[in-house]
Amino acid sequence: MKEQLYVKMALQAWEVNSKRTIAAFSSLSDDELYAEIAPGKNRAIYLLGHLTAVHDMMQPLLGIGTRLYPQLDEAFISNADNTIKDIPSPATLREYWAHINKVLTDKFNQLSPEEWFQKHTTMTDEDFAKEPHRNKLAVLINRTNHLAYHLGQLVLVKKG
Amino acid sequence: MKEQLYVKMALQAWEVNSKRTIAAFSSLSDDELYAEIAPGKNRAIYLLGHLTAVHDMMQPLLGIGTRLYPQLDEAFISNADNTIKDIPSPATLREYWAHINKVLTDKFNQLSPEEWFQKHTTMTDEDFAKEPHRNKLAVLINRTNHLAYHLGQLVLVKKG
Repeated sequence: MKEQLYVKMALQAWEVNSKRTIAAFSSLSDDELYAEIAPGKNRAIYLLGHLTAVHDMMQPLLGIGTRLYPQLDEAFISNADNTIKDIPSPATLREYWAHINKVLTDKFNQLSPEEWFQKHTTMTDEDFAKEPHRNKLAVLINRTNHLAYHLGQLVLVKKG
Repeated sequence: MKEQLYVKMALQAWEVNSKRTIAAFSSLSDDELYAEIAPGKNRAIYLLGHLTAVHDMMQPLLGIGTRLYPQLDEAFISNADNTIKDIPSPATLREYWAHINKVLTDKFNQLSPEEWFQKHTTMTDEDFAKEPHRNKLAVLINRTNHLAYHLGQLVLVKKG
């Protein structure tokens, strides 16, 4: 059951970073969400929309569901912060963020160790035969690092 | 050979984040190293010393060597930035950083998949029997996330 052990390790790293990021967003008031993480850099609300969209994208990539919030992509994926002026409210984004985290936790826990080692949906069978490390678990590991990267920025937001 | 595949995935995540962080530090001048990542937050030079010390600590933790730079701990681990005034020069820290990265890369590549799944040195045999996911590879995954967290901050330093 080595597969099970690997999956547990990767899921644990995801959970640790996920919980810390959820706590970091929760600790910010709606006003603080509009603060920049550093002068001239992304605002916290941009990171909230960005992480929600990136996490939502994991659903089709891992073959565990369809996108819930594709409407976020224009403001939070395709464009830099402050490019699109009309973005959802903090309340709406917080709701999406809480929901996508719950959905992913539920679906991640339903995937079997064997499924985690299958190819993700944008890989061809031919490529996967050559590069078996580009599996669903690799997506999880990569997105965990992406989460940690932005968590490091989020904790810089000045409070109070 | 699932062990081998899994180790490859974890090492690849380490390498990607390591290369990006090395490039980020290289892109900063010595003067820029003294800049804060955000107002009132750590300076880039603190992150350089901190990551060098944390990476060096992986040697005894993984049982692959003894510390090279324990003298960094007081300024970069035990204390916050600006607490210890007398810190090594940018040139010295850059040299340590380059060296520890090379040492880790060499030693990581020498560890067998089986060794990565052994307990790390601060675990007791009894604890490890109960919690086999707390192995050397878990240390690597955790430190990769730590690296990504600080990389996210480092890219905020204003240049020029």
